Amino acid sequence: MRTQVAIVGAGPAGLMLGRLLERAGIDTVVLERRSAEHVLSRIRAGVLEQGSVDLLHRAGVGARVHAEGLAHNGVKLSFDGDAARIDFPSLTGRHVTVYGQTEVTRDLMDARNASAAPTVYEAEDVALHDFASTRPRVSWRQQGQQRELGCDFIVGCDGYHGVSRASIPGDALTIFERHYDFGWLGLLVEKPPVDDELIYAHHQRGFALCSMRSHSRSRYYIQVPATERTQDWPDSRFWDELRSRLNPEFAARLQTGPSIEKSIAPLRSFVAEPLRFGSLFLAGDAAHIVPPTGAKGLNLAMHDVGLLADALIEFYSEHSSAGIDAYSGRALSHIWKAERFSWWMTSLLHTFPETGRFGRRIQRAEFDYLVGSTAARTSFAENYTGLPG
Amino acid sequence: MRTQVAIVGAGPAGLMLGRLLERAGIDTVVLERRSAEHVLSRIRAGVLEQGSVDLLHRAGVGARVHAEGLAHNGVKLSFDGDAARIDFPSLTGRHVTVYGQTEVTRDLMDARNASAAPTVYEAEDVALHDFASTRPRVSWRQQGQQRELGCDFIVGCDGYHGVSRASIPGDALTIFERHYDFGWLGLLVEKPPVDDELIYAHHQRGFALCSMRSHSRSRYYIQVPATERTQDWPDSRFWDELRSRLNPEFAARLQTGPSIEKSIAPLRSFVAEPLRFGSLFLAGDAAHIVPPTGAKGLNLAMHDVGLLADALIEFYSEHSSAGIDAYSGRALSHIWKAERFSWWMTSLLHTFPETGRFGRRIQRAEFDYLVGSTAARTSFAENYTGLPG
Repeated sequence: MRTQVAIVGAGPAGLMLGRLLERAGIDTVVLERRSAEHVLSRIRAGVLEQGSVDLLHRAGVGARVHAEGLAHNGVKLSFDGDAARIDFPSLTGRHVTVYGQTEVTRDLMDARNASAAPTVYEAEDVALHDFASTRPRVSWRQQGQQRELGCDFIVGCDGYHGVSRASIPGDALTIFERHYDFGWLGLLVEKPPVDDELIYAHHQRGFALCSMRSHSRSRYYIQVPATERTQDWPDSRFWDELRSRLNPEFAARLQTGPSIEKSIAPLRSFVAEPLRFGSLFLAGDAAHIVPPTGAKGLNLAMHDVGLLADALIEFYSEHSSAGIDAYSGRALSHIWKAERFSWWMTSLLHTFPETGRFGRRIQRAEFDYLVGSTAARTSFAENYTGLPG
Repeated sequence: MRTQVAIVGAGPAGLMLGRLLERAGIDTVVLERRSAEHVLSRIRAGVLEQGSVDLLHRAGVGARVHAEGLAHNGVKLSFDGDAARIDFPSLTGRHVTVYGQTEVTRDLMDARNASAAPTVYEAEDVALHDFASTRPRVSWRQQGQQRELGCDFIVGCDGYHGVSRASIPGDALTIFERHYDFGWLGLLVEKPPVDDELIYAHHQRGFALCSMRSHSRSRYYIQVPATERTQDWPDSRFWDELRSRLNPEFAARLQTGPSIEKSIAPLRSFVAEPLRFGSLFLAGDAAHIVPPTGAKGLNLAMHDVGLLADALIEFYSEHSSAGIDAYSGRALSHIWKAERFSWWMTSLLHTFPETGRFGRRIQRAEFDYLVGSTAARTSFAENYTGLPG
């Protein structure tokens, strides 16, 4: 069994790459450790930059995001009860689109299923071989059978815990990492959102975020210590805590209901460099993690695979390795700007016991400066809606 | 002996306040612990925002800054060898003026000496009394004689180590503070500056700053551990270290010579709130310290006394306490924005062993973003040249 590009991971990054390559006539096989149902059950981000929406259209799967995606022209920020709004179009000419990552995955999965491009779900013990050479191979087990696939390139889109990055010799990667002592407790509910825009709230009790997946489905988050467990957070406790962190006008409009899903995600900043080792490329969460505050995780993954698709298409159509040679550097330049923004926005909006009184006032001064300065609001808006490149 | 406003400290803040009040017909006495010569021997900052230059003109002492001050339309930044320039006029319509704090002090001192307004130098054991009431007093010793001055208000312009803030009951003040583990080793030399604009350099060996007092006198700084001593830094070692931190093009143009002055200043962020206790007001370094990276210290002091002069003039001319009641809040709003910028610029440009690899990359990403984004450069420029209010 042989293909041109073996893609490890059937999340949005792997499926998008497969789709872009398929449309350029390049053969791919996607290998996924989990079932399709499991992949679709993962609740993730829901804010798309225009570049990500453009990529969905380029991949020929833009119909549903066009019909169902919610164009958001701004976000609301609040700080200890004082509220402000950042208006994207007037500051940058752009907007963002609210459309769940699960929906992106579903659209890409449906397209791939409708094509002849093979996807192997529930591939066990996936292993990468000989990727320091130009004859790499991927092996796995399926229903007790050992399988192997020869290819020109392997692309690891298998996330932070995946096998791809772990297969690269430790001394070939430099790891950049920051841990935060807290996580986000998220709750999904079948109720209209409290507001038609996202609300990012700094409160002395901790950060809160009011977001949504649609006009009828809402996603709420509160900052909790990293040591918390979901079983200690019955819905009623969650709603009380969320309400206490919102400005009264928002708290009064909050529509509660039974949670559909509830989970705690740790916050982490992480980058592994470079994104290429021989014939193996890394993309998305396999190579980098941002705290979710800036809504950058999915968008960065889309940006990575957009660049990589162009590079691989150039390789096959023009016999030039210029694109694949430049991939790591180009992607990382973009990634670090998003890492910076995500770290900054996290630092602005969360509570950090270790920063003390001075640090809290600096957060407040940052909020006041942001609210009062067109340049600062423009900087926020251009980062949130997506920097070029 | 009686006056309307007793001013403690004959630095630029105290002298400016005295001058503005004198021109409004309000009596002041300035008390200074040191001699006039000592005050003038202190080497300090040299970058004036337009608001500070305007205040010098308003005080009737703007002739020399107008004739000798150097208009600077930008600064140069370098980061591990990559250089960029921030152009102030195109981004903000403003510029800054390079004119030494010593010269500001001299201009104000000359004007006060030429007037009838009394200044007491070498006032020993200055003590503040009854400032919780409306009948405050200041006492001191001079040539063995005990003196006392009754007044309506006392204004503490006597710096971080002065008696004024220390006289306020501890539980009436909230202190916000951040220490840095390093200082600036500064050297003054009678040589033309390496460049016609200031150069702020981040280098893996530490921060460096090339600044100037005039076309023929230069001031250079390098980041050193807080534990360093000037006697361990002969001129040759200083020049070698400075050269190693500058881009080759700048290092090649560096003109060295014997140091006129050499000193190490610790870096500190500090704010005491509020700025008023009864009939006592604090202004300038007596209430707040910024690390010198953003060149904000003198400008903040000028802003404070500009506000306070207006407030006191309003009090005496309109019998309204609205201005003096609003002083602390209005000044602090401005102070915290400058504290934020000074902390941010310090964080961007210095080396912090404790931030580790991730922190260093975030600094680099911040520099790259700054260089590449008009919004980010505008934000830098509007802060550096001085935010309104």
